[in-house]
Amino acid sequence: MKAEILCVGTELLLGDIVNTNAVFLSRELAKLGIDVYHQSVVGDNSERLKSCLAHAMEQSDLIITTGGLGPTYDDITKETVAELFGLPMELNETSLQEIKSFFARIDRPMTDNNKKQAVMPKGAIVLQNKNGTAPGLIVEENGKAVVLLPGPPREMKPMFLEGVLPYLRRDAQTTLVSHNIHIFGLGESQVESMLRDRMEQLKNPTIAPYAKDGEMLLRITASAEDASHADAMIRPLLSEVSDLLGDAVYGVDSGSLQNAVVQALSENHKKLASAESCTGGLISKRITEIPGASQVFDCGICCYSNEIKRRVVGVSEDTLARYGAVSRQTAAELAAGARRLSHADIGISTTGIAGPDGGTKDKPVGLVYVGVDSDWHREVLELRLSRGYPDERELIRWLASSHALFLALQTIRRLQR
Amino acid sequence: MKAEILCVGTELLLGDIVNTNAVFLSRELAKLGIDVYHQSVVGDNSERLKSCLAHAMEQSDLIITTGGLGPTYDDITKETVAELFGLPMELNETSLQEIKSFFARIDRPMTDNNKKQAVMPKGAIVLQNKNGTAPGLIVEENGKAVVLLPGPPREMKPMFLEGVLPYLRRDAQTTLVSHNIHIFGLGESQVESMLRDRMEQLKNPTIAPYAKDGEMLLRITASAEDASHADAMIRPLLSEVSDLLGDAVYGVDSGSLQNAVVQALSENHKKLASAESCTGGLISKRITEIPGASQVFDCGICCYSNEIKRRVVGVSEDTLARYGAVSRQTAAELAAGARRLSHADIGISTTGIAGPDGGTKDKPVGLVYVGVDSDWHREVLELRLSRGYPDERELIRWLASSHALFLALQTIRRLQR
Repeated sequence: MKAEILCVGTELLLGDIVNTNAVFLSRELAKLGIDVYHQSVVGDNSERLKSCLAHAMEQSDLIITTGGLGPTYDDITKETVAELFGLPMELNETSLQEIKSFFARIDRPMTDNNKKQAVMPKGAIVLQNKNGTAPGLIVEENGKAVVLLPGPPREMKPMFLEGVLPYLRRDAQTTLVSHNIHIFGLGESQVESMLRDRMEQLKNPTIAPYAKDGEMLLRITASAEDASHADAMIRPLLSEVSDLLGDAVYGVDSGSLQNAVVQALSENHKKLASAESCTGGLISKRITEIPGASQVFDCGICCYSNEIKRRVVGVSEDTLARYGAVSRQTAAELAAGARRLSHADIGISTTGIAGPDGGTKDKPVGLVYVGVDSDWHREVLELRLSRGYPDERELIRWLASSHALFLALQTIRRLQR
Repeated sequence: MKAEILCVGTELLLGDIVNTNAVFLSRELAKLGIDVYHQSVVGDNSERLKSCLAHAMEQSDLIITTGGLGPTYDDITKETVAELFGLPMELNETSLQEIKSFFARIDRPMTDNNKKQAVMPKGAIVLQNKNGTAPGLIVEENGKAVVLLPGPPREMKPMFLEGVLPYLRRDAQTTLVSHNIHIFGLGESQVESMLRDRMEQLKNPTIAPYAKDGEMLLRITASAEDASHADAMIRPLLSEVSDLLGDAVYGVDSGSLQNAVVQALSENHKKLASAESCTGGLISKRITEIPGASQVFDCGICCYSNEIKRRVVGVSEDTLARYGAVSRQTAAELAAGARRLSHADIGISTTGIAGPDGGTKDKPVGLVYVGVDSDWHREVLELRLSRGYPDERELIRWLASSHALFLALQTIRRLQR
């Protein structure tokens, strides 16, 4: 089957937003073994959208569109598809009820233009939108299918996974199963050079590397007649690769680093606290993302001046005067202070220069100290996180918070040895 | 002039990488006043690339391609364009010298397939690549132009700015200027129903609405012979719309809400502190994203248990026992406590149920209290932030942090009245 992705939205043509929908859909279709031959973007313009859709229908069997399903007058994808297929538009009562109950739930008035979202081309399969008001739809004609999804990724992704995936799988012969190995502290080329021969050899299961935000993920995927067979094909490779990469593996199917930390704390009945300077609350934000984090984390301090470091967290005046706020010693006292203030078992800390200003020759932008303090282990890491990019403040803060979380995880693991 | 962007690369169709090249080029062309009507992506396949290029040349005057200029056998963009225009390929001596000196500079041997990169369609304008080996090129024919750029953004961007921009500017007639009105607390359909008639009437300048993460942006764009004329056309509309929307406008061209808060604090020489329960550090993370935030914010507490709320922030035991942690009273004492602990001028707080668990009939998921405390203004807002989505913890936290930042901003503004 030849597929193509058509994203509708003038904001994409103006470069206002990155087209993450195309990436998501391409990846999902690749997993299903469906070949995507084209991606395209067109603005909220009826004539050009019609010409693009007509062209797409000539060259592809499956067309997935995103965007242009909203309540406003420039949302025209549905109407254009109906016109091309020669289908009349009609009010879909189920959709209307769902939109009404959505507005009741969020306690906001439903305006008249929201009703437009329940008007559908006759005969369309309606896809429920649990995360917004615009329903999606599938229109089939002459062995071709057009799937219309809303533009906001938060609405589009669940609708694809819950509504479109089962539809596309109807005639799939095999099942794909994947497991993810999460890695911190090794670069993509390092991991690839360790595994390259193995990766090239393998046909089923396969290993695919993904690098993101200073972490790596190896996805092992097998295709078999059912899930349990696919799973059995993956298991031995999972152990082999985990053993090879050792401590750098922070989890298998464990989600984010913060998720692995919260889980490890729970399992070991330990509590964590943080004192953050350069990361400014990012560590506690990441930990409290995880539902139930309050059982293992209840105190995070963002201490963004010497005064707060001293008066609230208890770093000594002498340390700050002698070594400065960005120092191994301050990081150690911040971690100990976080633990003392919170009565937690483990304290972690960050202090560094996130930039763009504030760097010196001795302490350049990207220099970060990350500390941990507990009864059984104390450590401070000196990191150089700048990669010389023009705007890397958020990247440095993110990497520093990841290093602190990974250090916390390693500290918990020491208990299990 | 009608332009379109054609990105070549199978890795884009597989969803392995995000198409940031399209964003960059779209934005740059928009700045020049060149209308981008289409973006598309095609794989490294000669036949499909040819069909896409032919289609693009029918509908557009300017086509910019990225990718497919490398040394390997599947890099075919140049050859395909030459074939379409009926131009012979010939070795370009200048390019060959540049490629040779590039390899000398990075001290690596030049392989034979690198020579292929110096072979060009006859008559092409060659664009030097200072950051890699593949030169770019411009081919003109019958009043149409095809610009071929390399795929890696690190090579493509400087080549565009240094080589293509001056070329495109030769005959640019108009300049586009945009200003953004940032809005909090009004929904997209609300704003649209207030402005719809005006938006439909306007041709130049235009107003375009964008909604994201609980905020709204109205972009006013004018096209004129130069920037100052365009600017003068925008100004009256900017005032008109700002007056109409009143307090909901948190800034013009002010970037994020946190940026507006940091700027307002700086201008008024005030300091802010936060005590966060349900947002768990997100407020302090957002504020410390802004370079220089340490001048106006140095203390944020994530207090994720009753004990820390009481012992560290100073909420009274009685309040917690009588009203509970998620209450108007606790929010008020948290805001006051943040201010007291930090010695800041303004304290803000959040406490609520972010879910997915922990909701009750009286205190459902999404109930959040946001507080502010200062000498001149004290207030607690009760918010219902659930929209009934299946996975809305991060959304609730985000909206709560935005409400707190907006409340801080309004509190600072009271000083100026």
